Amino acid sequence: MSQSLTIPETASWLKERDNFLILTHRRPDGDSLGCAGALAQGLNEAGKKAFVLYNPEVTPRYARFVDQHWAPDGYEADFIIAIDTASAELLPANGKKYEYRISLCIDHHSSNTNYSEYICLDGTYASCGEIIYELLLMISGGISAKSAECLYAAVSTDTGCFAFSNTTANTLRVAAELIDAGAPNTVLNRLLFRTKTLGRIKIEGMIYSGLEFHFEGAVAISSITGKMMETAKADEDDVDDIASIPGSIEGVLAGITIRELTSERDCKVSVRTTPAVNAHSICAHFGGGGHHMAAGFSLKATVEEVKTALLGVLGDFLPVSGA
Amino acid sequence: MSQSLTIPETASWLKERDNFLILTHRRPDGDSLGCAGALAQGLNEAGKKAFVLYNPEVTPRYARFVDQHWAPDGYEADFIIAIDTASAELLPANGKKYEYRISLCIDHHSSNTNYSEYICLDGTYASCGEIIYELLLMISGGISAKSAECLYAAVSTDTGCFAFSNTTANTLRVAAELIDAGAPNTVLNRLLFRTKTLGRIKIEGMIYSGLEFHFEGAVAISSITGKMMETAKADEDDVDDIASIPGSIEGVLAGITIRELTSERDCKVSVRTTPAVNAHSICAHFGGGGHHMAAGFSLKATVEEVKTALLGVLGDFLPVSGA
Repeated sequence: MSQSLTIPETASWLKERDNFLILTHRRPDGDSLGCAGALAQGLNEAGKKAFVLYNPEVTPRYARFVDQHWAPDGYEADFIIAIDTASAELLPANGKKYEYRISLCIDHHSSNTNYSEYICLDGTYASCGEIIYELLLMISGGISAKSAECLYAAVSTDTGCFAFSNTTANTLRVAAELIDAGAPNTVLNRLLFRTKTLGRIKIEGMIYSGLEFHFEGAVAISSITGKMMETAKADEDDVDDIASIPGSIEGVLAGITIRELTSERDCKVSVRTTPAVNAHSICAHFGGGGHHMAAGFSLKATVEEVKTALLGVLGDFLPVSGA
Repeated sequence: MSQSLTIPETASWLKERDNFLILTHRRPDGDSLGCAGALAQGLNEAGKKAFVLYNPEVTPRYARFVDQHWAPDGYEADFIIAIDTASAELLPANGKKYEYRISLCIDHHSSNTNYSEYICLDGTYASCGEIIYELLLMISGGISAKSAECLYAAVSTDTGCFAFSNTTANTLRVAAELIDAGAPNTVLNRLLFRTKTLGRIKIEGMIYSGLEFHFEGAVAISSITGKMMETAKADEDDVDDIASIPGSIEGVLAGITIRELTSERDCKVSVRTTPAVNAHSICAHFGGGGHHMAAGFSLKATVEEVKTALLGVLGDFLPVSGA
């Protein structure tokens, strides 16, 4: 069990120490990498040594926020800090060796497994970036333009550019402060939210053309096969958040994405719903689970078999008017 | 020439008067309708009579922000207020009769033609909603949940959910205050930004499948024919901002959308560019114009003829490396 620290206590903890190594999580997102970059930068500005452990899964989109802070070979840190990482299982392969010696975890996931010695956790924050923002203010009294840029990336990506349901008034106020501190929001918004890769465009086109509607439009099903990914020359980065597409169509109560993985008989299914339909219950029926409005399951079956299985039971989970 | 009023002067002007009719502009957007609804609501809460002139082009998406404030038949106002309307030409047909007796215009378009007796104009605001927010605070000392909902719609839609380049720190701070005042941002974001109509999904699918790339990917061309609109059962609301698609693809310097209008020989062309390419110059070549990164022109020609004409000259407008 970790020892809890408030944000001011965490700021003091950091001020009293030196020589940090910062860890991010597997499939690192803008919040994890943006926070890592900002914290390293802020600690450096406060005269401390701090590096980020290289994350082999970093994507070009987010690399710019952290690439000047990667730890050099042979760097020996006194304190290991995990950022935005809810459990030690989420550490990248090269971070596993630190699993039992993580001094501090800074996180906003209420599901955090308390694997670190100290923890600074607040599940009411939309992004870890909002916590790091407060920490840096306390450590150095201000936010540099470099840190502001990283933190804007963190805060904006974890809230879908302030559109997701986790967005709070605090999120928007922190983003405003970051713009005032020099975060180039126009450039960042264009990079992070208003640019699509060709692979993304192609795979979206295929998804849109192939969408199937059932139960009088209450259910939309999208399928993504390995062949589609190949034809579109799409990679994992290109299909980020793609499961939100069928659920975002007007009138759809349950949006389902069936993704063929390593073989034709290996499918991952994502279910996104409006409050009227329990996504978790649907997925629990197939051995999966999740949240009320976002859940998933895996099935060793073809896309068509998964579809048939789903259509056979979905009626039971829809409100009467939609069934 | 209008007499300029500051925001505090405008608040006093409103406080000293009563019996208002509020006008919105043609093809009314969230900013115009949200502001009109909020201003009517705020003036009502301050004990004044205020209605909004029915706008025949109001779409279901935005109607909720204003529909309880439409002026009843025969309402005789003492003061006419135009909102977010840069020139009298932009008034809807039923508003034309007020053209020469508009007492006050509240706007954020620097291009405003000063057609009203008084004007409250600040071109540094991303949305008219930010001005109305300040006005209502001064008129009644607070923002009700109803006004906050309308103003959140105004501020968020005019900035593309805080992603467009006009977004400022002030925009985000005002949005934060509106959430605190009761604006249901999650519900509104879902309605305004995270829901696509089936018509939109279908037309986007066709656009994505039909995208053409030229000049080594520096130019992307999208065509929208009347037949496509028919097949997708798409209406004007479904193709709102659709011209931004080809320009949002990674590596594209000029994104061009050719839209077939009333006949096969009547096309509207929209050009969206990155700073390296002058959209205005391209369009001026064809008798149109606009801004550096967003411009347009019309041509009495078929989609294919427009494409051929464009491809014949585009090379001259691209940076050397892209040509």
